[in-house]
Parts: sequence; C-alpha cells; structure tokens
Amino acid sequence: MSQRDGIKAYLAQCAEAMEAALAHSLPAEWDVPQKLRDAMQYSLEAGGKRLRPALVLAAAEAAGGGKTHRDQTMHVASAIEFIHTYSLIHDDLPAMDNDDFRRGKPTNHKVFGEAMAILAGDALLTHAFYLVTQAASIGGLSADTALAIVGDMSRLAGAPGMVGGQVADMLGEQGITSIGELEYIHLHKTSDLIVFCVTAGGRIGGATPRQLELLSAYGRNIGLAFQIQDDILDLIGDERKLGKKTNSDVEQNKVTYPFLIGLEESKAQVERLTQAAKSAILDAELASPERLLEIADYLVQRDH
Amino acid sequence: MSQRDGIKAYLAQCAEAMEAALAHSLPAEWDVPQKLRDAMQYSLEAGGKRLRPALVLAAAEAAGGGKTHRDQTMHVASAIEFIHTYSLIHDDLPAMDNDDFRRGKPTNHKVFGEAMAILAGDALLTHAFYLVTQAASIGGLSADTALAIVGDMSRLAGAPGMVGGQVADMLGEQGITSIGELEYIHLHKTSDLIVFCVTAGGRIGGATPRQLELLSAYGRNIGLAFQIQDDILDLIGDERKLGKKTNSDVEQNKVTYPFLIGLEESKAQVERLTQAAKSAILDAELASPERLLEIADYLVQRDH
Repeated sequence: MSQRDGIKAYLAQCAEAMEAALAHSLPAEWDVPQKLRDAMQYSLEAGGKRLRPALVLAAAEAAGGGKTHRDQTMHVASAIEFIHTYSLIHDDLPAMDNDDFRRGKPTNHKVFGEAMAILAGDALLTHAFYLVTQAASIGGLSADTALAIVGDMSRLAGAPGMVGGQVADMLGEQGITSIGELEYIHLHKTSDLIVFCVTAGGRIGGATPRQLELLSAYGRNIGLAFQIQDDILDLIGDERKLGKKTNSDVEQNKVTYPFLIGLEESKAQVERLTQAAKSAILDAELASPERLLEIADYLVQRDH
Repeated sequence: MSQRDGIKAYLAQCAEAMEAALAHSLPAEWDVPQKLRDAMQYSLEAGGKRLRPALVLAAAEAAGGGKTHRDQTMHVASAIEFIHTYSLIHDDLPAMDNDDFRRGKPTNHKVFGEAMAILAGDALLTHAFYLVTQAASIGGLSADTALAIVGDMSRLAGAPGMVGGQVADMLGEQGITSIGELEYIHLHKTSDLIVFCVTAGGRIGGATPRQLELLSAYGRNIGLAFQIQDDILDLIGDERKLGKKTNSDVEQNKVTYPFLIGLEESKAQVERLTQAAKSAILDAELASPERLLEIADYLVQRDH
C-alpha cells in the first residue's frame, strides 16, 4: 500500500468513526423538540470529508495520547464538526450565500425553514461547548486542559477567528485587491478552525507549549494551502471528480489566489505552505508525526 | 429607605457596573473587523434591565463569594448578557419575529443588515464561553468550577434549554391549548437562563450541591413568575410605565396564562411561584440570602 493509499484509508476510518459518533450526538434523554433534533441531525449527517475531526485524532496520536484518550478525543472531534456544521447552515441562509443545495442535498433552511435553520445553527454551536465539557467528565482529561480547549474554541471560532473571517469575506466581496486582505479572510475563515483541531488534539495528547505553537503553525499553513488548492481546482479541476462545476469563481467574479498572483505562482505557494507545515511538525519532535505529515501531502495532491 | 427602594438601588448599581463592563467587552488588541465590533456593541449597549447579571451577582453574594470573587462574577455576568443579547438579535430577524424596533431603537438587522446580524449573534454566543474561561484565567476560580459553568451554560442556553424553548414557542404559535405546553416554553425560553444565572453565581460563591439545587428551584420559579407577570402587565398594565402598548397579546391572538386560566388565577399563580422561590432560598441556608429574596418580591410587584 502506497503512502497515499495509507492516508486515504486512515481518513476513511476516521470519517467512519465520526459518522457513528454523530449518529447519536444529542443525549437521547434530553427533552428537546423533535423537529429541532431533526434539523440539527440532518446537517450533521450531510457528509463531507470529515477532515477536521481526522486532524484532531491525528494530532492527539502525534502527541502521544491518541490511543489512551480515544473517547476524549472523539468528543472534541465531534465538537468541531458541530461548529463546522453550524457555520455551513448559517452561511447557506438567504441573507448570506443563499444556497439551495450543499453536497447535492437541499440546504437546511430549504428543508426546515429559515427560522429553524437559524435556531438549529445556534443549538449546534452551543452544544459544541457541552461536548468539550463531556470530554473531561468521562475522566482522563483534566479540567485545566478542557478549559483551555474551550478557550481556544471560543476564540478561534468567534469574532477574532472564523466569524471575523466570514465578516471580512462578506464585506470584501468584489472589492479585494491585495493578497493581504485575501489572506486575512482565509486565515480566519478556514485556518483558524484547523489550528483549533490540531492544538486541541495536541492538548489532549499532552503536547508541550512549544509543540502547541508548532502545531498552530502547521494548522495555519495547511489551512491556507487547502484554500488556495480549492481556488486552483475551481480553475483547472475535473468536474466529475470534484462533483461540482468548475470556473464558478470566474463566473462570480470572485477574487482568488490565481486571479491575484497567477496559476503557477499559486501552485508554488501551495507547495511552499505545505513544506512549511511539514517543517513545523518535524521541528516539534512529536512522538508519532507520520499522519500529520501525510495529511499535509494529501491535501495538496488531492483532485477533489 | 424601604425594602423596595433598597432593591431598586441595588439593581441600578448592578446595571451600572454591567454597562461599564460591556462598554469594552471584546479585547481591544484582537484583530476583528470594525463593523463586526460595532454590530456586537450596538446590541450589547441597547439597554434593558440587566436583571440576569444582577442575579449572578446576588447569587454569588448569597453563597458568600460576591465580594471576594467580584471580578470572576462580573465575567460570568457579562457572559450571560452576551447570550441574552445574541438571542434577542436572532429573535428579531425577519425569518423569526421580524421586529424593526427593540426598546425604542432599530433592531440590529435594521442597522447592520441581516447577514451581519446573524454573524454578530453567532460571535456574541461564542464569546460568552470565552468570558467564562477568562473568569478562571484571572485566578481565584478553579478550572473545575469554570468548566461546570461552561457545561451549565451550554445545556441551559442550548437545545435542551433556551433554544429548545424558542423552537417550541415557534412551533406552538396559535396552537397551544394546555398549560403544560405553555409552561414548557416559558421554563426553557425564560427560566433556564435564570437558573443558569443563580447557579453560576452560586458556584462562584462556593455553594454546596444541595444549595445549587435549591438555587435552581428558585430560578425556575421566578422565571415562570416573571413570564406570567409579563402576560398580566400586557393585559392590565400602564402603557406609560411599560413603555409599550398593552393588549398586544390579545391583538396577536397569543396564548397566555390569563387567556388559559384567567386573570385572577394567573395572579394567584405568580404569588405561589414567588413564595416557592423564597422558600427554596430559605431552605438553602445561604450566608446572605436577602438580595435574592428581595428580587423575587420585586419581580412580582413591578409595574413595568
């Protein structure tokens, strides 16, 4: 099995574990309106690559606690899918991107109505924090570590993180002229949650402060590389493999990396960011860095 | 000074401290789009009675830690105003209640647009959890206690709490026929956050598990009494004192306590709930229960 097949199998395994965890995510004994449960569950189970939870698991393993702290890691990995899912539901709303479909399925508000979609998003976001407290309540994770994870999550998903990136994206539509502005958007809209994934996994696995810093650098770099690769695939990707139309950025006049710096320089940039991410991981001297290194390569070599 | 004047002065003092804390709530050094800061700040500063933070402060004092843990308490009190404020912004959206004004000021989406209002709400909710972690990071509050507060907040503000109540309210509009259904809505839409306020204050003040249970009972009862009193004031209140039109519930065909059980029985119910709340506090044998007892009386005697 090639390295590439190995990481694909690993990611598939993580995704499968995640699907199982998300299938019964709200405690059954809670007295919650069924329609709200349905709306939350609909989007949680709407698929996706589950890359973020895989990064939590891979980082926990890298730092040395992936096997001993499997249940705690899964709780935090679920939490990040809750955050990611809420952000997609709110993003798709008529007042935002006004999307009727996501991954081939009708968006949440098309199925449950706008009001329910807003509230389901709010409930998903709120429950993400509950899941982190649960990671500590099952034992094996100190309250200090869990609280640090809550702090990271609220910062990196909030105003100075993901939400700030979404606001900048919204305000900047059509008007972006510099790489600096575009980078601000991607660093916050995409990289911040990825930084959260790998540092949370690192914290659970017992990473040192210096290792957490290097994991952050890894997350920032692969997040940005991932986003530029998305821009590149939209321009030159295979529609059948991508499962969506290409050239949508050009049609929507979206300012992208290839638009600002050209296709070749964008590819070179992805390569540089990937190398920087891998260097950070090597510098961190983690117990088992292999999966994180493979994921960095996988993200840049992917064709969908 | 009468007891009533005393509690009014106390609440005014709490509200003033809260206004000061909310005036610079997001760290100034964070790189956050100015428009997002403005949108969050606009609604945070849009006034209101600030009853919820006062309940956090009063409960912390009652349990014995109000003075020694003033800064920690203020952080958690701010957090609850962030949650309350986000819920109002999302509630006012066109897809929800579609309100153009709140407390005489244009609602958030009327000033900043719908997309920004959704994102400002998301950012406020997320930052509430950050504020709780800050209560611990300044010292004097254990990570265990802060994490328990995070757990309570995510549960009581989330799907099994406030959001669940809002969903039930939305689904039940016009169709509610029983007190049980109406009670579910108010217990979750209103009481759950009040339960959070007094138990969070209690936790900071060092309350025992039994005291926390009795504080919860107090919160449930005054939350429900507050809501029934609102229904009563809408029917027989003084428009000038209320600052809004009365009889709006009748005009909107809203199902209320007076509608279901009559005005006199509603008043009796408010009285019973207030007594039950005060009994719980007396049973709890807290160090300084006075303010909590006075607040229970104040809520039922209020005319606006």
